[in-house]
Formats: sequence, C-alpha cells, structure tokens
Amino acid sequence: MANPVLVEVMRGAVVESRHCGAVAVVDADGKAAFTLGDVDRPVFPRSAVKALQALRMIETGAADRYGFTDQELALACASHSGESGHVAAAQSMLGRIGLDASALRCGAHPPMHVPSATALCRAGIDPTALHNNCSGKHSGFLCLACMLGADPRGYIEPDHPVQREVKATIASMTGASIADEHRAIDGCSVPTWAVPLKALALGFARFGTGNGLAPERAKAAARLRAACAAHPWYVAGTGRFCTEVMQRLGARAFVKVGAEGVYLGALPERGLGIAVKCDDGGARAAEVVMAGLIARFGAWSEAERAWLERLLQPTLRNWNGFAIGKLRPTETLIQ
Amino acid sequence: MANPVLVEVMRGAVVESRHCGAVAVVDADGKAAFTLGDVDRPVFPRSAVKALQALRMIETGAADRYGFTDQELALACASHSGESGHVAAAQSMLGRIGLDASALRCGAHPPMHVPSATALCRAGIDPTALHNNCSGKHSGFLCLACMLGADPRGYIEPDHPVQREVKATIASMTGASIADEHRAIDGCSVPTWAVPLKALALGFARFGTGNGLAPERAKAAARLRAACAAHPWYVAGTGRFCTEVMQRLGARAFVKVGAEGVYLGALPERGLGIAVKCDDGGARAAEVVMAGLIARFGAWSEAERAWLERLLQPTLRNWNGFAIGKLRPTETLIQ
Repeated sequence: MANPVLVEVMRGAVVESRHCGAVAVVDADGKAAFTLGDVDRPVFPRSAVKALQALRMIETGAADRYGFTDQELALACASHSGESGHVAAAQSMLGRIGLDASALRCGAHPPMHVPSATALCRAGIDPTALHNNCSGKHSGFLCLACMLGADPRGYIEPDHPVQREVKATIASMTGASIADEHRAIDGCSVPTWAVPLKALALGFARFGTGNGLAPERAKAAARLRAACAAHPWYVAGTGRFCTEVMQRLGARAFVKVGAEGVYLGALPERGLGIAVKCDDGGARAAEVVMAGLIARFGAWSEAERAWLERLLQPTLRNWNGFAIGKLRPTETLIQ
Repeated sequence: MANPVLVEVMRGAVVESRHCGAVAVVDADGKAAFTLGDVDRPVFPRSAVKALQALRMIETGAADRYGFTDQELALACASHSGESGHVAAAQSMLGRIGLDASALRCGAHPPMHVPSATALCRAGIDPTALHNNCSGKHSGFLCLACMLGADPRGYIEPDHPVQREVKATIASMTGASIADEHRAIDGCSVPTWAVPLKALALGFARFGTGNGLAPERAKAAARLRAACAAHPWYVAGTGRFCTEVMQRLGARAFVKVGAEGVYLGALPERGLGIAVKCDDGGARAAEVVMAGLIARFGAWSEAERAWLERLLQPTLRNWNGFAIGKLRPTETLIQ
C-alpha cells in the first residue's frame, strides 16, 4: 500500500523525480478533514514537535522564573539557522539560568545560514553547540531541568526528568500511546518517539486552538504560538519557509519543519492541525506539501493566496543561476 | 504502477524513511539480467554519463593532440570533490588547449570535499568554476571544441558541434532515440537528455565490454575505463563511493554517480551494465542500491564481498557522532 506521489520535480518539461508521502489534516476532536496515504504508521516527528517539547517549560513557570523573553520562547521552538541573533539569544537563555554553552549536549554544526557559516569560517572560528539549530530547544530543556531541581547534566537521557516530562506531554497532546520500541535518538541526541501522523495532526490541532486541553496547557500553547507569530525569525531564520510563512500569515498559521521530510503545523482560525511526512525524507517536497495544505485549508485574501501560490511551485536553478525546472504539487494534493 | 522500495532508512529499530526506485542490469546485447520497477521511463542520467560524454574526445584524437594524461582523462569522466589535486588537473587540461578557467561555463560552487571548502573559505578565496565538480568534463568539452575547429565559447549550447557530437554518442551507445522534448539543462548548464533506464544500462554494458561497438569506440571506452581504474581518486575524491569502489575493485567495476539519485556502471568481467534511479533523487539510497547490485552480480573474493557488505548498510550518525541508525537494502534488491 504505497503512499501517493505528492510532489514532482520537473527538469524542463520532464518529471525527473517524485516524492511520495502521507498527509493528515485533523480537528481538535480528532476528526479528519483530509488524509492521503497511510496516516497510522508511526513517524518520528523530529524537530517539528519542538513547540510541544517546550510546553512544560511554560506550564511549570520555568520560563517566567528565569525571565525568558518572547524571542527566547520562539527560539525554544526553533530549528534556527545559526545567525548571530540566534546564537546571542541561545547564549542569553543559558545566562539566565546560570549556565553557558558547555552545558549544551546537542553537538556542534555550522550555521544553516550560508553567509553566517562563511563569515564564521573566514574568521577562523569553529562552530559550537550554540550554532546547532536545536540550541534554543536545549536551552529550554536546561531551564526546565533547573526548575525541576534535576541535575542538568543528564538532560538528554530518556530517563531524565526533563525527557520524562516531554514524553508525557507528547503522549497527552497527541493521544498516542508512545511505545519504548518506537523510541530512537534525534539528530541533537535527545529521544524522539515515532507517533502516527494522524495523532501528530491532532496534537497540533489542540496546540493551535487550545481545544481539549486543560486551561494551563491551553494558555501555555497560546503563549508559545504568540511568541512564534511575533518573532518568526527566531523560529527558523532569514529566507526559511517557517519564518516566511509566519511573517506573512502571522498567528493564523503555525508551521514547523522536522528532519526527514516532516512538517507539522496548525491553522488556528480553522481549528485544524496538519501533519506531513515525505516517505523519502525529502525536505524540498515537504515544504511544497505544507504550502499546498495551508493554501487549501486556510481562509486567505487574494494577495495571500497569490503569495502562497509561489511557494507551491518553487523554481529550481543551477550553478549558473539558470532556471532549469521547478517543484510542483500533484493534483491529489491541491485539487 | 509504483516502483518498489529499494532502501530503508532505520532510526533505532523503526523504519524512518523509504526510497523507491528502478534498476536495470543488462548485457551488451540488451538482454536483461535483472530489472526492478519501470525501466522504460526516461531518466536524466545527469553526471553519470560523463564517461560517454568523453568518448568523442578520445576517438577524434583530441586528447592525444593536446597530450592529456590518464589522470586528466579520469577527471574528464569525474564529478570531482574540488580538492586541490582536482583543481590543478582541470587547470592543466585547460592550459594544454591554450585556455584558462575563464573559458569554463559550468558555474562555480564550493568544493564538495568539506576540508577543502573550509580551507578555501578560511583563506578568503571564493570558489571558481575550477572547483565545480564538472570542471574536468567541461575542460574535455573545450578540448573537443578546439579539435573540431569550433568556437569554444558556445560549447554548452545544444546546437554547438560539441553537444551535437555528445548527443549522437549517447544515442548510439544506448540505442535510444533521443527526443528534443526529453532535453533539459544540467546542473553545469550543458544539455541532458532523458533516456530509459534499460537503455542506459545497455550503454554501460557496451562501454564496459566494447561488445557491439565499432573498433575505434571500443578502444576509446577501454582507454577511459583504464584511466578511471588507474586513477579513481580523480573520478570523485577522498572518501567518495565511486573512488572507494574502483580503488578496491579496480577495472572489474566501473561506477559513476549522477545527481537526483542516479548511478550508472559496468561489471566488465561479467559483461553487464547497471543503471539505478532512485525515484525521489536520494543519493544516499542510490549508493546502497549500486553496492547491492555490484555485490550481487560480480564475482568477488570473500574479502571483497565482506568489504562490499559494509557499503550495503552504512551507519547514520548524529551531530554528536552517536550511531542513531543505518540504511539497509530491502530483500527485493539483495535476495
């Protein structure tokens, strides 16, 4: 039972490559507005659930105790590009809890933002854990560890109080039973649990609306949504899909990328959560699918709709900058 | 009629992503030894046909007239990593024909070899067309242009004598009729023509054995194969799949990667050509598939077989270097 083709990669007039995947659009009662493919198969949400991973930091009062700003809350939900503003915000978060970059266990990688990576390299500076796209999330985990009175040192381990809290939060938000055999290690070394796509969409319908959540949790979700809508640059970075969508559509769309072709999000006004998994892990296709679902299930002005259309068929260019083709969604997705 | 899953991406014990694709293993008479999926659909071979694109440079006597070394012939067939030795060889090729880097029309990109890219960046040097992985192929095109007495300036255009020769060569080698509507622009700005996978495998069976080719062409193919087998580092670079396979197996395996999940090659001793296309363009999967086909259809020693097995299940690591999963071929591929 193969998943349908969702996106085609055109080179000239020929389909060069194809991306299959599954899609779930669900309301906060778990009622599916739209599904494609197998939405019951467990999927690692990866970084796309960072906003859910950040909920306990708000609910427990940790974020307030340490005085996190809205920009810093957005960074806790981010896969940031490692631009200097992101690095400074992560450093500030750590400073507020009396720690520094040496407490981070996410590993180091060069900034995703190429000019920032080039500048770092030209200056002869090795990237640190602060440049890791997950440094905001990890700073949030450390904040929660301190609030819980737990030793911050083991915070990436599955049996650490922080990860137990995170696991319980994801289980509760998605309504999925999270099995130990569905646990693996994420790119930044924290646990990631595979959850059915439909359950992930439900989790984001709840996150996006507060419906079905306890008052404290609904409030925490609203606060994180507002922080991301107000500071979308902190959620990703210059030129990135998540940032551009939230800059353009504000609080009416919450979107978050995850590795291996995952996109999760919510259309709060419409009461819907969205979950996308591109079978092959292709990020380029997942963006097109998410753009297609936002366009299809949101209520947008003419201008917003025209803007979204451009995200649906991104032009592909070669090393000379020649337009050599494009991505395009298949009819099954946009009809 | 979806193509089968060829490679699974494991994170822990869970299949995180899946790569589908098609495979053709064909002898020089066009008889299929093995196929999976749709092998009649036209596929852009991209850089995987560089060896075929280089044939006319040998046949016309251009390579000898300008005194190209075997290393330089290997570079003409290469998607090189932009290491200093590759750059020097491309520069030398251009010098032999009285040109320099300004004649290249492939565009610039940073070396694929990360330490080389870092060293360049730290030195404050912008990458040039010489660092483009196709600079050897383009230098070969310029050499052919000079031999043909054609203006080298338009050598990337479809109606330039060089590209007409290349098109005729690919048509003749693969036995495919190459339609104008199947032409598009490659990453390095030369034309690329989509050809059925089965025809590409036939082309490489002929290239690998000389069977079915005119004597001059068979000789040219043998010379390019020998150059690549003797100097596999020039075909790709440090740590790359093509280089490592040909370093280990020598003239008994010719393999060449192409963009968007293509791998082409030959097992000359076995009389077979191999063509792989991963539907979604995933390079990681195409390597595993090629390794599986080499293992399955070659005659290898115990030690060689054990070495190939390791290419079949590469370990995946995260930013901390933790082993978080692996790629693995599906049974349909290796049984």
